[in-house]
Amino acid sequence: MGNEDKTNQKRGQAPAASGWIRTVQAKMEGPSLEDNRADVDRFLNQIRQSLDSEEVAIDFPLVKKMPGILRKEGYDVQAVLYRANHLWHLIDILPAQKGARIFGLAVDLGTSMITIRLLDLLTGGIKGERSFLNPQLEMGPDILTRIHKASEEDGLCNLQGLLIQGLNREIGQIVKDQGVSFDRVAGMSVAGNTTMTHLFLGLDPYWLCREPYIPVINRPEPIRAGELGLGIHPNAPVLVCPNVGSYFGGDLMAGILSSGMHHRQGTSLLVDVGTNAEVVLGNRDWLMACAGAAGPALEGGVASMGMMAAPGAIDKVATDRESGELKLGTINNSPPVGICGSGLIDLVAQLYRLGMIDLRGKFVPARCGDHLREIEGMKHFVVVPSGASATGKDLTLSQADIDSLLRSKAAMFAILTTITEMVNVSLRDIQRFYIGGAFGSYIDPRSAITIGMLPDLPLETYRALGNTSLEGAGQALVSKRARDEMYRIQDQVTYIELNVNSRFMELFSAAKFIPHTDRSLFPSVKQNPGSLNIL
Amino acid sequence: MGNEDKTNQKRGQAPAASGWIRTVQAKMEGPSLEDNRADVDRFLNQIRQSLDSEEVAIDFPLVKKMPGILRKEGYDVQAVLYRANHLWHLIDILPAQKGARIFGLAVDLGTSMITIRLLDLLTGGIKGERSFLNPQLEMGPDILTRIHKASEEDGLCNLQGLLIQGLNREIGQIVKDQGVSFDRVAGMSVAGNTTMTHLFLGLDPYWLCREPYIPVINRPEPIRAGELGLGIHPNAPVLVCPNVGSYFGGDLMAGILSSGMHHRQGTSLLVDVGTNAEVVLGNRDWLMACAGAAGPALEGGVASMGMMAAPGAIDKVATDRESGELKLGTINNSPPVGICGSGLIDLVAQLYRLGMIDLRGKFVPARCGDHLREIEGMKHFVVVPSGASATGKDLTLSQADIDSLLRSKAAMFAILTTITEMVNVSLRDIQRFYIGGAFGSYIDPRSAITIGMLPDLPLETYRALGNTSLEGAGQALVSKRARDEMYRIQDQVTYIELNVNSRFMELFSAAKFIPHTDRSLFPSVKQNPGSLNIL
Repeated sequence: MGNEDKTNQKRGQAPAASGWIRTVQAKMEGPSLEDNRADVDRFLNQIRQSLDSEEVAIDFPLVKKMPGILRKEGYDVQAVLYRANHLWHLIDILPAQKGARIFGLAVDLGTSMITIRLLDLLTGGIKGERSFLNPQLEMGPDILTRIHKASEEDGLCNLQGLLIQGLNREIGQIVKDQGVSFDRVAGMSVAGNTTMTHLFLGLDPYWLCREPYIPVINRPEPIRAGELGLGIHPNAPVLVCPNVGSYFGGDLMAGILSSGMHHRQGTSLLVDVGTNAEVVLGNRDWLMACAGAAGPALEGGVASMGMMAAPGAIDKVATDRESGELKLGTINNSPPVGICGSGLIDLVAQLYRLGMIDLRGKFVPARCGDHLREIEGMKHFVVVPSGASATGKDLTLSQADIDSLLRSKAAMFAILTTITEMVNVSLRDIQRFYIGGAFGSYIDPRSAITIGMLPDLPLETYRALGNTSLEGAGQALVSKRARDEMYRIQDQVTYIELNVNSRFMELFSAAKFIPHTDRSLFPSVKQNPGSLNIL
Repeated sequence: MGNEDKTNQKRGQAPAASGWIRTVQAKMEGPSLEDNRADVDRFLNQIRQSLDSEEVAIDFPLVKKMPGILRKEGYDVQAVLYRANHLWHLIDILPAQKGARIFGLAVDLGTSMITIRLLDLLTGGIKGERSFLNPQLEMGPDILTRIHKASEEDGLCNLQGLLIQGLNREIGQIVKDQGVSFDRVAGMSVAGNTTMTHLFLGLDPYWLCREPYIPVINRPEPIRAGELGLGIHPNAPVLVCPNVGSYFGGDLMAGILSSGMHHRQGTSLLVDVGTNAEVVLGNRDWLMACAGAAGPALEGGVASMGMMAAPGAIDKVATDRESGELKLGTINNSPPVGICGSGLIDLVAQLYRLGMIDLRGKFVPARCGDHLREIEGMKHFVVVPSGASATGKDLTLSQADIDSLLRSKAAMFAILTTITEMVNVSLRDIQRFYIGGAFGSYIDPRSAITIGMLPDLPLETYRALGNTSLEGAGQALVSKRARDEMYRIQDQVTYIELNVNSRFMELFSAAKFIPHTDRSLFPSVKQNPGSLNIL
């Protein structure tokens, strides 16, 4: 991760005419005594014909600009417009250049990491991409801290300001790199959790985390970029992917859209793995969603050796078939610095298979041998000894780290069980199991099944979708059909509040074991104890 | 005239629910775990039910304000909204007070004189009225000078600024006088000629007076008052009565609306007498309009003793039946200072009846006796000798003054003849002849017929409507039906350009005589020579 540029066109994008942000050529007859319509009337008449729509609105500053540009360009111009609220709104009038392009930005507004993607609005092609740390991290590492900060004097304004400044810096870089003029960026779509979109819009998040958890707004109309101080065309519409509630944000709505599960006849599950486990179950007829705090353990965030995915992070752990020894893989093959989420799940799965932890997740000293240390009264497993680590210190996994991971995986499994039970669908009937989130892409489903975090389904059921939030935001930006689908999904989703669900608590307790108290749910998971040597 | 306050309810106004600016009570259930909709969704849902409309848009600053006011008011509020572009737009959210009122301002934006009228938007009742000189007079007395000034550096901005400042000063006074808070003024409608509305909106009027005479816009969508810097509620919509073309403005559109001629089966004529003579002919099936420069003579503006209607202006001239002498009436019965438009028409009509001018408008010395003076080589008729005037000087009417008036009256009559000929309607078939404009109300139709300015119709055909521009602007402000009717009128009116009409020039020449070269057109006009003594 970190700052990076990508150029790809991995998925088919919408063609030009289907966009809700588009250009229209307007070549008019000039005025005469026989045809002395007002400039704006002449222009609108032409645009209405081209769009085959009566409903076109022009903001007043563009009305002022109209006579000058029409005469300068000899009544031959290109209009840039967007559609919202049953109206086409004029963004700008440009000279009628052949092949003039307009661009848009899709933004995944993560609590920790933000990714922006520059798209060609007429072809849907991806021009570039950049990821960077959310600048709000300096005011608070997590959502709750930021909600708290927002209620301090100037807090909300500062949080929004940091974010907009950070976005503008990266937008400036991406348009420069791609040789695009900022005023040709004619639209933006933003997907984030409900708190992040509130902070982005400068809306008070105070009530989001207080019972009964009320957002200010779930589906804002597109806002002009200039109103938010964004460094693109000031009239460009900013589409915020809609929330379903305080704990179910536009990022997941974009995720559903990009998964296509709402089109499939068979029932699918979509899971976004993060601090919150967000789960959607459904098919083309119905969609159920719930979210619950899974804790940051799944992301590796709280383990003593935990870190974000970066060079040197252990991201893969396997057992060598012949030697029976643990094999560690690191990002960029750099010397190990710590462990990221996917590595942690792999590691605990391997420790269990090797019999080094039991079904409660407790270390089995006889199996662990001299890997086990007692530090400040707690058992630690040395994953990488100081001599082999990049830090010069032992990289260790504590009993508390495992306990934390098991609580998180239990929460995830309990959420999956609760939601399927509610609609009377067996987990075994799930035909597709989509795993979203940048981090989700790196999880090995085999390991996740072993620890009982994901259900014991055939491995081909699992599909890692990568950054579904960014992908869905991009689709909703370039295609009217996709945007409208997203709004229909929002209307269709039934959200279940787990905080007040007693069945969830029962299921949570039963899921704290490896893989589960009911072993019959995980027939494929077997222990295969062997010796342990870290390669 | 001058600053004055009026309170009347002379005409029936629209009831509350028919307004396009209105209030709606929104009393909601508060949020709970069972009903955790977002604040804006909850509010919108209630509003949509009350309005029976799905389409409600909220500007972003009001979205921000929503959670605070809903909680402060216990989810019981009053929404103020306006309808435009097929959408209801939220203006503000107020505490749910019983009987809370909202107000609006109708504005007649004259080139010389501006009148504002404060209306209760819920009852349509008139709260007060103020008239004042157009502050743009200091930059240019007439439209052409102002168009010229507008193209100088900062010229347009200064012209707009003077106007907005002047309006704000008077608005501040009228709301203070009526005990109304400025932020309860939730709408404004403005009727003016095309140049005045361009200057009001800050639109470049450069092309209005240059062939082929193209306005920037004819039918602007309502603009928020804040965008124009007007001192009422910043979200209040400002409706500008639409133009048909450069020489046919929203003032006349409002005039047609207020006359009701577009509803009548019989054919009517509406004339707005001013520097431009604006004429509309039609009925409920069709409407034809034209405008032509009549010159300021009809307003008394260019005569050597000419003045605006003000105390001391001679506004009535009659011949005493018994003595055969001229009787002068002045405004407020003050000693005479000069003569205004209606007085001038009366005076020339009397001079003709008394045989003191001939059918060419030339003085008949034998009849005028010692009233006639030669000043700088031109004949002058002493109307008030220096001893009787308030100025201490003779008040005189020159041969040039009469010539100028006859050209103006000829233009008016030629316009009336041209437009009726075009649709093959005889002037004698006109069932109603409406005279609009503040000045029009004071014209004696008998005198206007005598000089051949108006056709020789039964006197009961003539109806003085007063300030039709202000009246129509008020109707369009308080009633959605009236506003929509005005837009339909705009679509319906066929505008005839007289500047390129050769028949008009023929008719103009024939109409320069008193009453006309074709005397059969004016059977009622007779000369009745007598002695002249001014009473």
